[in-house]
Amino acid sequence: QFRAEFLELHPYDQAKIFETQSEQVRQQIYSYLASEEIADVMENIDIEDIEPFFTEMTTAFAANVLAEMSTDDAVDILNQLDKNKVASYLTIMEKEAAEEIKQLLHYEEKTAGSIMTTEFVVLNANQTIKEAMKHLRKEAPDAETIYYTYVIDNQKRLVGVLSLRDLIIAEGDWLISDVMSERVVSVPVGEDQEDIAKMMRDYDFLALPVVDFQDHLLGIITVDDIMDVMQEEASDDYSKLAGISDVDSPDDSAIASAKKRLPWLIILLFLGLLTASLIGRFEDTLDQVAILAIFIPLIGGMAGNTGTQALAVAVRGIATGEFEKQGKWKMIAREAGTGLITGLCCGTVITLVVYIWQGDIFLGLLVGISIMATLIVATIAGSLIPIMMHRLNIDPAVASGPFITTINDIISVLIYFGMATAFMNLLIHG
Amino acid sequence: QFRAEFLELHPYDQAKIFETQSEQVRQQIYSYLASEEIADVMENIDIEDIEPFFTEMTTAFAANVLAEMSTDDAVDILNQLDKNKVASYLTIMEKEAAEEIKQLLHYEEKTAGSIMTTEFVVLNANQTIKEAMKHLRKEAPDAETIYYTYVIDNQKRLVGVLSLRDLIIAEGDWLISDVMSERVVSVPVGEDQEDIAKMMRDYDFLALPVVDFQDHLLGIITVDDIMDVMQEEASDDYSKLAGISDVDSPDDSAIASAKKRLPWLIILLFLGLLTASLIGRFEDTLDQVAILAIFIPLIGGMAGNTGTQALAVAVRGIATGEFEKQGKWKMIAREAGTGLITGLCCGTVITLVVYIWQGDIFLGLLVGISIMATLIVATIAGSLIPIMMHRLNIDPAVASGPFITTINDIISVLIYFGMATAFMNLLIHG
Ligand SMILES: [Mg+2]
Ligand SMILES: [Mg+2]
Ligand SMILES: [Mg+2]
Ligand SMILES: [Mg+2]
Ligand SMILES: [Mg+2]
Ligand SMILES: [Mg+2]
Ligand SMILES: [Mg+2]
Ligand SMILES: [Mg+2]
Ligand SMILES: [Mg+2]
Ligand SMILES: [Mg+2]
Ligand SMILES: [Mg+2]
Ligand SMILES: [Mg+2]
Ligand SMILES: [Mg+2]
Repeated sequence: QFRAEFLELHPYDQAKIFETQSEQVRQQIYSYLASEEIADVMENIDIEDIEPFFTEMTTAFAANVLAEMSTDDAVDILNQLDKNKVASYLTIMEKEAAEEIKQLLHYEEKTAGSIMTTEFVVLNANQTIKEAMKHLRKEAPDAETIYYTYVIDNQKRLVGVLSLRDLIIAEGDWLISDVMSERVVSVPVGEDQEDIAKMMRDYDFLALPVVDFQDHLLGIITVDDIMDVMQEEASDDYSKLAGISDVDSPDDSAIASAKKRLPWLIILLFLGLLTASLIGRFEDTLDQVAILAIFIPLIGGMAGNTGTQALAVAVRGIATGEFEKQGKWKMIAREAGTGLITGLCCGTVITLVVYIWQGDIFLGLLVGISIMATLIVATIAGSLIPIMMHRLNIDPAVASGPFITTINDIISVLIYFGMATAFMNLLIHG
Repeated sequence: QFRAEFLELHPYDQAKIFETQSEQVRQQIYSYLASEEIADVMENIDIEDIEPFFTEMTTAFAANVLAEMSTDDAVDILNQLDKNKVASYLTIMEKEAAEEIKQLLHYEEKTAGSIMTTEFVVLNANQTIKEAMKHLRKEAPDAETIYYTYVIDNQKRLVGVLSLRDLIIAEGDWLISDVMSERVVSVPVGEDQEDIAKMMRDYDFLALPVVDFQDHLLGIITVDDIMDVMQEEASDDYSKLAGISDVDSPDDSAIASAKKRLPWLIILLFLGLLTASLIGRFEDTLDQVAILAIFIPLIGGMAGNTGTQALAVAVRGIATGEFEKQGKWKMIAREAGTGLITGLCCGTVITLVVYIWQGDIFLGLLVGISIMATLIVATIAGSLIPIMMHRLNIDPAVASGPFITTINDIISVLIYFGMATAFMNLLIHG
């Protein structure tokens, strides 16, 4: 009764229910369901939450569950578990599944190899459509997708691709070689997952074949996993922009999350000290016109804000490829223009406000012109820094907002106090 | 010759080549290819770049191309074109296509209705598998996907779903009603695209049916379009974190991009003036101990940095649903803990550095304790603000880094100068 009702649900919903049960109930679920059915549930549990469930299963049952899962998901889970456990699961598991999983465990994180699965359907160029359909029907229950099938030659090299749409439209006695497309788009096994996601998005594929350097078909990457990759990469970029070195999960403890944030904070602390020592050089100026100090946060803040905006535009532009299309000089010129316009607007506003507030036109002009110069320089810096990083083959997304903000703080202090010192006479006697 | 070679390419590659040609060559391409083939090219051109191509086609040809496109893509393009043009295209176009497009043009941006397409395959519960396969073969060339088919009743209400995988495994004389799944996951036509993307990701679907409030099947949303939605939403969140009100495209002119950035900058300018006037209240303190000024950017900067980090974690947590799972109090407590740890670390470091540098332990302690207090408060503020916005049903992603930075600037100034004023005696005579 429970079994029938539970299995009618989508595996994702099964997983949501499963997670909220007590261990006692979960043990009953393990005994009511087949390892294949538990495998479907496990595929839909958040990878960070998976460990306890495998720990509470018997080793034999856990090994069966892992063998029934898609190899890509099994590998993801094994990467979360204790090395000794992994070894014992792989020993017990039926040999074929264990071999495939062992292969996949070797690929580097965030590459094609680490997200591909090995349950793909292969056809032969000399088969007829009818034979192929028969083969497909047999493979359907275990294959990750049957909507794309791949054709390989005698050396197991990838030579063609065929969608199920092509297959069902074709006549039964035609040959696969007549119907297949020989222009197969594939990715090398070491390809970065972010680039694969971009390809999948551009070409609207549901799956992509993964090959080694000799074009041997090693696995396929399916679109459902690419959606997860896109989510992961977006979180990653978002966190980096905010100056968190590693993706922060709300599951972390305070200590874990402090550890992730401290590296940036300490670097920024020392950059902040640099700013302090630079202002220290202008102590004479400050002593004479103490009022100058009150505009420090305003000018530094505006520099940081505009720099972060420019940074975000540049990083997105590089990530989406818009930037390649346009060229770096055009982009920098555009940013300089934007800095000039925003600088003129903000500078004019602030000159007037400070003049009215403090009744000192020279102070107003000093603050206004500093803001203008700062906005121009900070906007250019905000786009130049990621572009330079991109040229040096560093992921520009690591240039965080806080980093740009601090750099621009320094620039703004130099501009502001430099100008104040130069025009000291006007400020005192004006 | 050109025609055959060009058509062998994937439509995305065709589009890339097409875009780089001169108008003269493009006119030749229009005349060599059928409107159906041009439709495939147009579906793969960036929506922002599409306008000139339709402008250079004859009205009749453009109308044909639009009629041959997937309705969702045709609608996206029509939304970019001049209203008069749209009206004339719809008048010329064959009636059925025009009707479907007109319907779709009414749906609000970023809802299910605006991203769905109407080329879905419908089956009848009383059909046999064999009849259904025959119907599917006929529909295949025009359907957006044939991998999912939907079953409707006499009132056109959605009652079942069937994958092509289920279909080809089933025996020819079974009835659709025996094989279909009656638990159809569907989305209402007004549903937000971001929520739909999350659903698609959770359930690993390739397509989702869209229904009205009476469960009538209106269209389907396919996974390729959801990948574009995910990209768009990620860019949006990323831009907002950087304080850009609207997604900025590197295609924009300097004026266009200045317009997008100025609203935030002007708001931040006035918040910065507020900070300045707050510091102004401490003018006496500053006059007596001018050295205090040099640490303003450091303290304000650290407050901004840690606030932005906390903000990013909270916004991601809310977006991914992790936050719901955990509850707001636990999250705030965690952030307070993180603030305490990072505050203690940074505060200790800075106390020592300032003491060694300036030879004044009281100044060191003042700056160190200010940093500590600031980090704790700023971290909590960084997570509280998005949580409050979420409660008020405001998208927490609009709380940008620059905004949090400026708020935290104000907090840090109050803490720093408040403490300095309170312990003035120690600083002067200590
Ligand atoms: Mg399975
Ligand atoms: Mg993996
Ligand atoms: Mg990457
Ligand atoms: Mg696409
Ligand atoms: Mg998978
Ligand atoms: Mg999966
Ligand atoms: Mg990235
Ligand atoms: Mg088409
Ligand atoms: Mg649309
Ligand atoms: Mg939204
Ligand atoms: Mg998924
Ligand atoms: Mg579409
Ligand atoms: Mg959002």
